[in-house]
Amino acid sequence: MSFDDFSRKPHDRLAELMAKDMEGVGELIRARMASRHAPRIPEVTAHLVEAGGKRLRPLLTLASARLCGYDGEDHLRLAATVEFIHTATLLHDDVVDESGQRRGRPTANLLWDNKSSVLVGDYLFARAFQLMVEPGNLRVLDILSGAAATIAEGEVLQLTAAQDIATTEETYLQVIRGKTAALFAAACEVGGVIAGRDETVSNALHAYGDALGIAFQMADDLLDWQGEGGAIGKNVGDDFRERKLTLPVIRAIAAADETERAFWARTIAKGQQQDGDLDEAQRILGKHGALDATRREAEGWADKAVASLSDLPEGEIKACMTDLARYVVARLT
Amino acid sequence: MSFDDFSRKPHDRLAELMAKDMEGVGELIRARMASRHAPRIPEVTAHLVEAGGKRLRPLLTLASARLCGYDGEDHLRLAATVEFIHTATLLHDDVVDESGQRRGRPTANLLWDNKSSVLVGDYLFARAFQLMVEPGNLRVLDILSGAAATIAEGEVLQLTAAQDIATTEETYLQVIRGKTAALFAAACEVGGVIAGRDETVSNALHAYGDALGIAFQMADDLLDWQGEGGAIGKNVGDDFRERKLTLPVIRAIAAADETERAFWARTIAKGQQQDGDLDEAQRILGKHGALDATRREAEGWADKAVASLSDLPEGEIKACMTDLARYVVARLT
Repeated sequence: MSFDDFSRKPHDRLAELMAKDMEGVGELIRARMASRHAPRIPEVTAHLVEAGGKRLRPLLTLASARLCGYDGEDHLRLAATVEFIHTATLLHDDVVDESGQRRGRPTANLLWDNKSSVLVGDYLFARAFQLMVEPGNLRVLDILSGAAATIAEGEVLQLTAAQDIATTEETYLQVIRGKTAALFAAACEVGGVIAGRDETVSNALHAYGDALGIAFQMADDLLDWQGEGGAIGKNVGDDFRERKLTLPVIRAIAAADETERAFWARTIAKGQQQDGDLDEAQRILGKHGALDATRREAEGWADKAVASLSDLPEGEIKACMTDLARYVVARLT
Repeated sequence: MSFDDFSRKPHDRLAELMAKDMEGVGELIRARMASRHAPRIPEVTAHLVEAGGKRLRPLLTLASARLCGYDGEDHLRLAATVEFIHTATLLHDDVVDESGQRRGRPTANLLWDNKSSVLVGDYLFARAFQLMVEPGNLRVLDILSGAAATIAEGEVLQLTAAQDIATTEETYLQVIRGKTAALFAAACEVGGVIAGRDETVSNALHAYGDALGIAFQMADDLLDWQGEGGAIGKNVGDDFRERKLTLPVIRAIAAADETERAFWARTIAKGQQQDGDLDEAQRILGKHGALDATRREAEGWADKAVASLSDLPEGEIKACMTDLARYVVARLT
């Protein structure tokens, strides 16, 4: 399936289906990011949450809950929780990565300072925990606090694995589970749990979110090498310049001859990059079919995501979630 | 009561009373700071938790629970939770304050980097939340997640109030409630809650921790100006050099004449400090009795802490907690 087969993007369709719920989530986010004593907090948060992110994670919580027939209000709290955790990690990521831009705008660490980003991120984490406690469901708390730990663990692992050309596919998978899939999985799973469904259902939703997150992140890592036709995407080669070990490079290093191994050691391990290195890196990736292999791997995870939903009720919501999994990898062809 | 009336420090006596429980907390901390995938995490954490802090906060949780007659095991989890939250805030504080030393050793941000401190702090926050969920007590979750939010809010408030010579005593009180008293209060309160005691008791324990924390922080802020006779204390004048608005300065600014106001505007608001300014600042504080006033204020909070315990059972634990409140201000005379 190609990019163009999606006349309307699946997450836009999902957002329409969940429009009323999403309004509730938006209100909750605005109310809870306030601070009576420290006006810096809503300033920094608003800069980020109103920059127009896709709000994919809260959408997944709402969709999962509704797919399971939930008709209460607690899914709004959990959706807001998930978005707060995501926003907190973005604030901290931008400090760690020394980023200057996010969602097309200057980052909070640039507009204010690193201190504000660290502390406001902490505040949002704490507010997320307050929100998730409110429904009074211990299983939900278990899932979301576990996801928060996996996220932080993945970030630390990414930090220590950076520039290490001995990084394995297994480590890569742990890193992207932490940085992306853990929150996707938890966002979906708690939707099923809050709807009171049994573990078969909540596990299926967890598996969907996990596979979707992995496919999503692999696609992102691939697009960093091949670009996205016509769309306003990332700059090709950012990860190479930042010496990040993503799947295409890991595959190419595994298949490298002696000359190529020396090339990766110089450019990634030692960080001695010069003009023409990006072209040479792309040539090596092409020679070993590392981009195609990554795409097939991502498509495999998208298949897993779709298969996870097989026993869940048919309907518009499931159709959107299925298409979403197909869409994240359709961008690649 | 003077410093020397305490033949043994109250927190040492408390640590002896709680020795077996503290061993359990130590084991739990070591077990839960581990990470299967990211060895950097226990390295950074061990550097801090094994540097020999007083572990006053977990002691307060254990003491409060035992004072209420608790004989289960969940208080160990809550004590470890409280220490993890404290350790996480220390890691982030050292990044925010750009500190190079903590507990007489180089800080983690200096030994590793700011990135590791931010991310390992996030991991410890998440592990704290996982631990606090385990006893399955929603009231406990409410108290501890609320404390985490108050801590972060206080830190942001401190950041925005820094160098602002219009800072009020009210703002100062909010800042120190956030940076110190909120976790002391929560640490004590959850001890009563986990013991199944009613709100009269848990509120009394909260009031004790709140007042103790405020007295403790005010004493700390005063010692920064007057030093601590003989003890290995902080360097006198650190807060002045860092342009922090603590109670002695706020009092002196409130009473300042025109010349003095210009002095504070130059040294603190503008940060133009020169040789002799610290002496001059101390002279002005002395002239207005700002140090004495701060000491009396801290003593008042210590009195409140002691009074809060009036309806709790007499015995060794209560005696230690009472002496602890007296001790934090006795350091000042």
